[in-house]
Amino acid sequence: MGDPTAHSCFHTTHVAPEAVVDALQSGKFNGYASPVGLPQTRRAIAEYLSRDLPYKLSSDDVFITSGCTQAIDVALAMLARPGANILLPRPGFPIYELCAAFRHLEVRHFDLLPEKGWEVDLDTIEALADQNTVAVVIINPGNPCGNVYSYQHLKKIAETAEKLKVLVIADEVYGHLVFGRNPFVPMGVFGSIVPVLTLGSLSKRWIVPGWRLGWFVTSDPSGMFRNPKVVERIKKYFDILGGPATFIQAAVPGILELTDEVFFKKTINILKQSSDICFDRLKEIPCISCPYKPEGSMAMMMKLNLSLLEDISDDIDFCFKLAREELVIILPGTAVGLKNWLRITFAADPVALEEALGRVKSFCQRHSKQFES
Amino acid sequence: MGDPTAHSCFHTTHVAPEAVVDALQSGKFNGYASPVGLPQTRRAIAEYLSRDLPYKLSSDDVFITSGCTQAIDVALAMLARPGANILLPRPGFPIYELCAAFRHLEVRHFDLLPEKGWEVDLDTIEALADQNTVAVVIINPGNPCGNVYSYQHLKKIAETAEKLKVLVIADEVYGHLVFGRNPFVPMGVFGSIVPVLTLGSLSKRWIVPGWRLGWFVTSDPSGMFRNPKVVERIKKYFDILGGPATFIQAAVPGILELTDEVFFKKTINILKQSSDICFDRLKEIPCISCPYKPEGSMAMMMKLNLSLLEDISDDIDFCFKLAREELVIILPGTAVGLKNWLRITFAADPVALEEALGRVKSFCQRHSKQFES
Repeated sequence: MGDPTAHSCFHTTHVAPEAVVDALQSGKFNGYASPVGLPQTRRAIAEYLSRDLPYKLSSDDVFITSGCTQAIDVALAMLARPGANILLPRPGFPIYELCAAFRHLEVRHFDLLPEKGWEVDLDTIEALADQNTVAVVIINPGNPCGNVYSYQHLKKIAETAEKLKVLVIADEVYGHLVFGRNPFVPMGVFGSIVPVLTLGSLSKRWIVPGWRLGWFVTSDPSGMFRNPKVVERIKKYFDILGGPATFIQAAVPGILELTDEVFFKKTINILKQSSDICFDRLKEIPCISCPYKPEGSMAMMMKLNLSLLEDISDDIDFCFKLAREELVIILPGTAVGLKNWLRITFAADPVALEEALGRVKSFCQRHSKQFES
Repeated sequence: MGDPTAHSCFHTTHVAPEAVVDALQSGKFNGYASPVGLPQTRRAIAEYLSRDLPYKLSSDDVFITSGCTQAIDVALAMLARPGANILLPRPGFPIYELCAAFRHLEVRHFDLLPEKGWEVDLDTIEALADQNTVAVVIINPGNPCGNVYSYQHLKKIAETAEKLKVLVIADEVYGHLVFGRNPFVPMGVFGSIVPVLTLGSLSKRWIVPGWRLGWFVTSDPSGMFRNPKVVERIKKYFDILGGPATFIQAAVPGILELTDEVFFKKTINILKQSSDICFDRLKEIPCISCPYKPEGSMAMMMKLNLSLLEDISDDIDFCFKLAREELVIILPGTAVGLKNWLRITFAADPVALEEALGRVKSFCQRHSKQFES
């Protein structure tokens, strides 16, 4: 599990806990919020997201959730109906599959293409979609691949979705955490081409994943989600959700307004440094190849070449033996949908990463096939 | 909506926000908790609930939720399967009906009997249950009726459920908020007769409903819920929920340990006072009768005698006209399942309650039929 707070080099800005303490100590936010969120919180998030859009979101477009996880559930539960299917990326984020199972949505996987910077295979999407397809999920910046899609690619995704008459669910929980060629472009930019459900949270950019403050946003200037029946159904669903603490919600406007750009830059600098370390050290290991240098988020994918290893049967075997022999934990690619790949989260202390990758190298050397020269 | 925090006479103990501020400022609880909850939080709640049980709950029995609302969803979602039905009380708490609809559970209502202190109509339960019935929901202390069930009645419910082979979902969100003849007896006391799912939260007893800190607990000494497949399924469901903030969870052990008995007594004294005011003032109004003097929780039910009113068609009409003419808001009984009843929440400032009930009296006098003497 990627949790940067486990490493002392990642910590939130002082602005964030101060705003929460103020809200709590005011004594004004111990009661219920509206199930869809405090009005000032919805407004602040609408304004925050609108900064990067060619149109203005309204408060009514924003629904406050208990982290991005609950926003995923809202999106999938709202779209589920008998026979419906949803298109999910492979590799992806396994909570989508789990959520689809609980909400009775059939899952169809499309591939992300490692040789094309993990771009979406648009041809597969067209082949998979039918009249029961309700949405396609795009995670950008990418988890687990560390990709950041270009404006052009996102536009093509929007056009494809529009052609197929399916929504786009844009998981932007890593929004703004980019450090490569492409800037972060929110999918909502193309909301007038196709209705977009934008999912996000404070978790990653503010390094407070445990605060459970997320959002489900209808980035939909054409107003498809303003249908009163749809709004009513979404609101009713929020009635049963629980949602985040009122006093944390009350802190959000201050957090969004007062956080300094310097704080964001510092996080990005560390992520760039730590991802560079991963990429460079892994290049030294013959049985591991990394087709793409990460440009965003906190994770990357590497391919295992099992033919170079002597006694490793697959990615799971690799990870178990590595954990046992070197006390280094890497997620087997199987867990995110790609067998015989590995997922590394680089949201870690650079010194610890160097040490860990050194151990991975030793491990691979020890298990390499000995070729005669 | 009953939210005592709207009235200055109800406020939480200083212990609670202090514990939360400490946890937040430690900087140790910004990261993810386990989706089922922090271990120390689960342990503290297990110990807290075990004080009133003839056996000890373990940490593994406790799952932390985003308020009692999310605990309701967990219970219903975990029990849903094609064709299943659940028995709900009438009057009841409408989130159950909403949740059952979203989780595809058929609802069957049994009556609470006003003339018997809102006891469960056990005969109806037996008549309603079939092989597809998965659970019966008991809200004690009662919402919206203000009843507190005796040990003997709870035991009979457990025996009936056992006979019918259905679980009991015990909604004890108002646990310990009692001020009449009967002490609060948790349903889990009868966990060895029938497996009980206990739902609760800090919300009411600590007067912090906006903190969203609840629990879903398997009060089940016979171990039915320790089946590994069941535990696995519950854990997976928690993976998609979001849950409450880690730093609030971290404050729970301190809150449970340090809260003074004096704080609890003060809340109960005000509730007793305000419920007495309601009962006494309503007795003065001929068209309203209250079959039961509340002994717990924060709400009560009154019956409207429409034959004494001139131009009021039903409970909804009564409440709309009352709101318009007197700026007093009462919930129509229809919203909780009883047409031509009214629900009053007495978790309000006693002075404001006196004023409001005076206005209800004027309203009723003004709309009374004029009988010739």
